[in-house]
Amino acid sequence: MPLFERHVFVCHNVRPAGAPRPSCTGDGTSELFARLQQAAKAAGLGAPAIRINKSLCLDQCEHGPTVVVYPEAVWYGRVRPEDAEEIVNEHLVAGRPVERLRLADECINAKACPHRG
Amino acid sequence: MPLFERHVFVCHNVRPAGAPRPSCTGDGTSELFARLQQAAKAAGLGAPAIRINKSLCLDQCEHGPTVVVYPEAVWYGRVRPEDAEEIVNEHLVAGRPVERLRLADECINAKACPHRG
Repeated sequence: MPLFERHVFVCHNVRPAGAPRPSCTGDGTSELFARLQQAAKAAGLGAPAIRINKSLCLDQCEHGPTVVVYPEAVWYGRVRPEDAEEIVNEHLVAGRPVERLRLADECINAKACPHRG
Repeated sequence: MPLFERHVFVCHNVRPAGAPRPSCTGDGTSELFARLQQAAKAAGLGAPAIRINKSLCLDQCEHGPTVVVYPEAVWYGRVRPEDAEEIVNEHLVAGRPVERLRLADECINAKACPHRG
């Protein structure tokens, strides 16, 4: 089975200061990304089963930092570095998405929502 | 249905000159990405149905430029800008992956393959 069982994209987009939409990582570093990688390694997960991948803009900027897990297309928003272990251990290891971090359906890819004017 | 029906990640990774692994976009621009976006727009595809997304390293560097389409996890390699219309019209519109561009199973996420020593 050569395909990744799960491919996790972590938004790493950086906009200039003062841009109209926010950035998922304001300073070009991503503690969230690093902690997801560390947690996956600690759980014994790695290629080819799982890849934690930096992505450029996932277009959910008002809900960031944003993470999407494929192939199941589970979207997480407002993810903090300290959430990384829970995402790895619950979702990637145990197969149970972390409900408290999931973006509401009406917020994903919506032109307007309570957070995106 | 708020989720993207298809989420297309185009590797946009740039390594320094002389790096041991190649880059999918050597100069930080990506005509492939631009042409995929143009072709999708011409075909009437856009959010929320489809997103053409820049990604950082997809770790298939020896087969790049690399594109992966989720949720079906179809991987394309050595994609040229002039392949963009075919990917959009055949795969994204008609639902038929472009077989001639697909990476061989034994090359995807392999530690070694005929192209990755």
